[in-house]
Amino acid sequence: MQFNDLLLKRCMLKSLIRLGVRSVNNSRLFCYSRMPTATPMEELKAAVTQQGAIVRKLKESNPSPDELAAAIDELKIRKLALSNAEKASVVKEPKVDRAKFENLMKRRFFYGAAFSLYGGIAGLYDLGPAGCALKANMVNYWRNHFVVEENMLEVECTMLTPETVLRASGHVERFTDIMVKDVKTGDCYRADHLLEAHLEKALEGKGLTEETKEEINAVLRQIDNFGLKEIGELIQKYGCKAPVTNNDLSEPAEFNLMFGTSIGPTGLVKGFMRPETAQGIFVNYKRLLEYNQDKIPFAGAQIGQSFRNEISPRSGLLRVREFCQAEIEHFLDPEDKSHPKFKNVQDVKVKFYPCEAQMAGTDLHHVSVGEALEKGIIKSQTMGYFIARIHQYLAAVGIPEKNLRFRQHLQNEMAHYACDCWDAECKTTYGWVEIVGCADRSCYDLNAHSKATSTKLVAKQTLDTPVTREVVEVVLNKAAVGKAFKKEAGGVTTAIHEMGDEEKLQMKQKLESDIFKLTVGDKSYDITPAMVTSIAKVSKTEHVREFVPSVVEPSFGIGRILYCILECNFKVRENDEKRTWLDLPPLIAPTKCSVLPLSSTADFVPYVEELSAALRKLGIPNKVEDSSGSIGRRYARTDEIGIPFGITIDFDTVKQQTVTVRDRNSCSQIRVPVSETADLINKLCTDQISWQDAKQKYPEFLAQESSN
Amino acid sequence: MQFNDLLLKRCMLKSLIRLGVRSVNNSRLFCYSRMPTATPMEELKAAVTQQGAIVRKLKESNPSPDELAAAIDELKIRKLALSNAEKASVVKEPKVDRAKFENLMKRRFFYGAAFSLYGGIAGLYDLGPAGCALKANMVNYWRNHFVVEENMLEVECTMLTPETVLRASGHVERFTDIMVKDVKTGDCYRADHLLEAHLEKALEGKGLTEETKEEINAVLRQIDNFGLKEIGELIQKYGCKAPVTNNDLSEPAEFNLMFGTSIGPTGLVKGFMRPETAQGIFVNYKRLLEYNQDKIPFAGAQIGQSFRNEISPRSGLLRVREFCQAEIEHFLDPEDKSHPKFKNVQDVKVKFYPCEAQMAGTDLHHVSVGEALEKGIIKSQTMGYFIARIHQYLAAVGIPEKNLRFRQHLQNEMAHYACDCWDAECKTTYGWVEIVGCADRSCYDLNAHSKATSTKLVAKQTLDTPVTREVVEVVLNKAAVGKAFKKEAGGVTTAIHEMGDEEKLQMKQKLESDIFKLTVGDKSYDITPAMVTSIAKVSKTEHVREFVPSVVEPSFGIGRILYCILECNFKVRENDEKRTWLDLPPLIAPTKCSVLPLSSTADFVPYVEELSAALRKLGIPNKVEDSSGSIGRRYARTDEIGIPFGITIDFDTVKQQTVTVRDRNSCSQIRVPVSETADLINKLCTDQISWQDAKQKYPEFLAQESSN
Repeated sequence: MQFNDLLLKRCMLKSLIRLGVRSVNNSRLFCYSRMPTATPMEELKAAVTQQGAIVRKLKESNPSPDELAAAIDELKIRKLALSNAEKASVVKEPKVDRAKFENLMKRRFFYGAAFSLYGGIAGLYDLGPAGCALKANMVNYWRNHFVVEENMLEVECTMLTPETVLRASGHVERFTDIMVKDVKTGDCYRADHLLEAHLEKALEGKGLTEETKEEINAVLRQIDNFGLKEIGELIQKYGCKAPVTNNDLSEPAEFNLMFGTSIGPTGLVKGFMRPETAQGIFVNYKRLLEYNQDKIPFAGAQIGQSFRNEISPRSGLLRVREFCQAEIEHFLDPEDKSHPKFKNVQDVKVKFYPCEAQMAGTDLHHVSVGEALEKGIIKSQTMGYFIARIHQYLAAVGIPEKNLRFRQHLQNEMAHYACDCWDAECKTTYGWVEIVGCADRSCYDLNAHSKATSTKLVAKQTLDTPVTREVVEVVLNKAAVGKAFKKEAGGVTTAIHEMGDEEKLQMKQKLESDIFKLTVGDKSYDITPAMVTSIAKVSKTEHVREFVPSVVEPSFGIGRILYCILECNFKVRENDEKRTWLDLPPLIAPTKCSVLPLSSTADFVPYVEELSAALRKLGIPNKVEDSSGSIGRRYARTDEIGIPFGITIDFDTVKQQTVTVRDRNSCSQIRVPVSETADLINKLCTDQISWQDAKQKYPEFLAQESSN
Repeated sequence: MQFNDLLLKRCMLKSLIRLGVRSVNNSRLFCYSRMPTATPMEELKAAVTQQGAIVRKLKESNPSPDELAAAIDELKIRKLALSNAEKASVVKEPKVDRAKFENLMKRRFFYGAAFSLYGGIAGLYDLGPAGCALKANMVNYWRNHFVVEENMLEVECTMLTPETVLRASGHVERFTDIMVKDVKTGDCYRADHLLEAHLEKALEGKGLTEETKEEINAVLRQIDNFGLKEIGELIQKYGCKAPVTNNDLSEPAEFNLMFGTSIGPTGLVKGFMRPETAQGIFVNYKRLLEYNQDKIPFAGAQIGQSFRNEISPRSGLLRVREFCQAEIEHFLDPEDKSHPKFKNVQDVKVKFYPCEAQMAGTDLHHVSVGEALEKGIIKSQTMGYFIARIHQYLAAVGIPEKNLRFRQHLQNEMAHYACDCWDAECKTTYGWVEIVGCADRSCYDLNAHSKATSTKLVAKQTLDTPVTREVVEVVLNKAAVGKAFKKEAGGVTTAIHEMGDEEKLQMKQKLESDIFKLTVGDKSYDITPAMVTSIAKVSKTEHVREFVPSVVEPSFGIGRILYCILECNFKVRENDEKRTWLDLPPLIAPTKCSVLPLSSTADFVPYVEELSAALRKLGIPNKVEDSSGSIGRRYARTDEIGIPFGITIDFDTVKQQTVTVRDRNSCSQIRVPVSETADLINKLCTDQISWQDAKQKYPEFLAQESSN
């Protein structure tokens, strides 16, 4: 469900709903200036460690809630400062020249701003041929790695979603940001961002009393927690104006981030473009359970576009208004979070950055998933299983291990219904970016849809030994109830039976001397003694246990992963700064192989066609690179778009029926018979043979590469 | 671009824009009752042939436009009657029991109404696990068959589209139907449908004069051609009321079929969910041409969802509000419509139903594409090439040849910018349904976007021999023009240079005695003799030819093809009416293989796991069918969802390390060593070995199947 990244902001988020809507690098850098001891990284780390220790000690001493909250607030501020400084250092010492990288992306059309012919629209991007093939490969591998491997139940639901569904899920009410407008120009801003910037600037002013400073700092610390009214009052109080124009600001208003529309011709059925793919799985829960022959656990999965009308999208592909998600909802028994295939992954080593390490300012744990479970870093086999599987997926599609970590949400950063949450984060020139979220959630959504539709969304477990327990049973006088409440009698009856044992006993007591007032929704009903035949404890034997399943939810941002793959694998040839290349794994490379005739000689054409067709027959996308230019320049062109292997046809091909096969990463070449070439490329692309092995098998070839 | 099916309606359609919005089976059956000689099929055919001959003769005799139009109208009516009768006969003698078929689709969750938990929304469907896998296989094969095989340039553009783009393409203005409302209930109706039904009913009344009848018939014949005002007047004139309620109807209004929304926080950027994927390719034309190193022809392609807010969607998956399209825009030189790979497909045999055969009521031509080109049935190699490739695709994914035909659009059924258009149609229980459209179009869209953005969208061809030709050149007095028109001088200058030779000479003549009035947009400029230095014929040598490319557009409705595959392959076992099964080709079957332990004996478990894992490793989606029930019943369960092969593990597996492999279609079984099984299934699924060959290689096994 959730998809977000803004690690800096999350500590103050109150609900998962809000998580999706933060910008990547709006980086509350003000924290740095507010830090008392803020200078080099070591000091910042020490400040965090120190405060972490204070919080831990405090917790042991049974503190007042206010006291603890204040200490935790301070810890958060110090952690933010550290995180910002880390970020700043990333930006200051870039391993990737982002301008160069973006130039390549644009020039070879991996992606580009959508509708640029018409001036473009912020937050909308189109994928070009290379980006599109890369994405298709990522999605296909995702489907193999998760859906096929785990027998997940994939669905494809509509993006158009009626309001009723998103009202039940909480999106209509809570999927919002607070917005203000410049009263003259009508330009829109996030209210909290404006106020924040305004107060930061105010702090820099001279002549402020210590008291005022402390007051402003207190506001800043709470900036994410204010409601509509409070934000409005603070804007008034501190005289916050619109940037650039300095005009007055409008009253703040909630801005819902969903794209609204209307379904059907009447205009009466309100709808939205879905803000996430997860809800489609939840509303199909019953069908999926039935499809799975009522067995649990099982997982639903969905891949598709979601839509969020960001107020001011930035950061290229990392923050867009239309994006591809791949989500898994693994439904399981809340009382049994083991996973039958955990043993298959227990040795997978992952960098864990748990809550405690973040609080204490200590290092990551680079341990196996099995060890993490033993040490209590992770709490269940199922969470461990998915973290390992996510790690394997990301590694396979080309996220380097060194750029990857799993960061646990802090206790108060999590949604109220989640009991554990880990984000896969990738280090980029924008800092650490969340690319996958994995939450162990309760049964929030199924309960919400169940309530909204008065439909049971449960699973059943046949008990090996029936369970007998005492329950309080109410026997009603149906005739009396029916006479009193007419059409509403059914609702009243259900409400009484669904009361807890405690409540039923209270009703019994009440009825001995009086009537009982029953509240259903916003209505009240008088229950008289005559309506109740008996209320008594009885023994009940249950053969089946009924429960609302919990959900573990791995949620992938495909566009973000795609961006990270490209950025992390953008490289420059050691001896030639102008020659940039993409180190994409063959598994996901848009084009697997190039076919290059050495010159435009007609003799080469039949070989080019034969080899290209042979590769296609094996399902290997290939590109005939017969543009003008030296062979070296053409290799460089294929390196730029990450083609892992190249076949060159030269005069020896005509004479001896052999070609050269070139490896992109090492730039080394071997000489291979034409008849064996397609098969060799296929094996190289599917990891059935390594380049080293191929070099053992075929003679090396040393001539052409240098002819640049 | 276009996607529609309603062959009955199309004859009166004026523009391609309108084509997408018709319902499949709103079947103008009234035509039948209006036919004078309408009884058995032979008479209907004869009536069409007769009128076809009249039209042909008439054309030779240089008729008045009115006379010809009337004859063609009559021909259309007769053709409609024939087509309806054909449809009716299809429905009367169904080979597929649609209720049974739909029950299977629902029960095994191939697809289902979306949001049914909330009561459902008309025209929205979700794909379940089987439907989803089927679609993924269809799309992957489409990508291999078209994109990889032809080196097409695939893009993925956003669905959110700003209004400016769709205004340029004509959708904002013309993508509409005329709607009326019941003034009391607010229920919405298509105005033309209501009026039509009303007039048909009126015709059945008694006591009508021949004159009145003829008048009504004349209206009915034109029903698709009326505008807003005329429809309103006719509704008034004939006293047309709302169905059921008999309430008055509102004034008719244009209803645009696009889902509107607003992009960004200001509410000022109007947008729509795209109504087709084609426009994304057109607006990226320049980038794609550059990607292709300025070489033409090339094809852009896109697969993705499109959205149309149908007034009253029906016919299940055939008419939905959100659907998946796969579109190709093949850009080519309008002066050269040859195709380099035509020779590869010239022997592909296709059922052509050309315009002339439809007019004359004669039969289809079942000929090779090469022959069709020779005979002039199709007009270009490129059109022929794509028809053959579409045919190959549809055959491979499981549309039976007998259910498939290519129907040419009638002359007046085509959009004004198309010069040829063929639809692949599939015969279903709903009649013939368009599943792919293939239009040879002019440069309509590139011109439209070029005009809207003042950007050249052209291709260039370096001429082998430069061309010298006489052109009229206007030399302006820049100072005078600048002084007279200030800021607008540039626009005036461009407009003058862009005038045709003829027009320039007219201007020259005019200026000899007077001023010349130049019109640009809605403004007029006075050009005086002083502003023009000279107007004269000069010789110009061109080394490069610049042109706006034409487009051949194959457009696939993936959801419709999916429906047709399922319906056409729905079968019943000969000796058991209850045992229905799906004859899906292994290429696209959602699950390729089942693994069935004969019983729940623990000894079988390791074999089940080993085989399932071995299949997964080869990328073969498989299903362990270990539910309770006899092996026969479990085979039936796998047959129902179209699993082509099944592996059964029994006691001999434990003893002799062999399993049975079963073929779904023949229900025959062979005995295969465990170690060879996964590889055999892989070869069977990828057509490397046929079931017949497998039976030759391995001993037949005769025991288990009957134990139902």
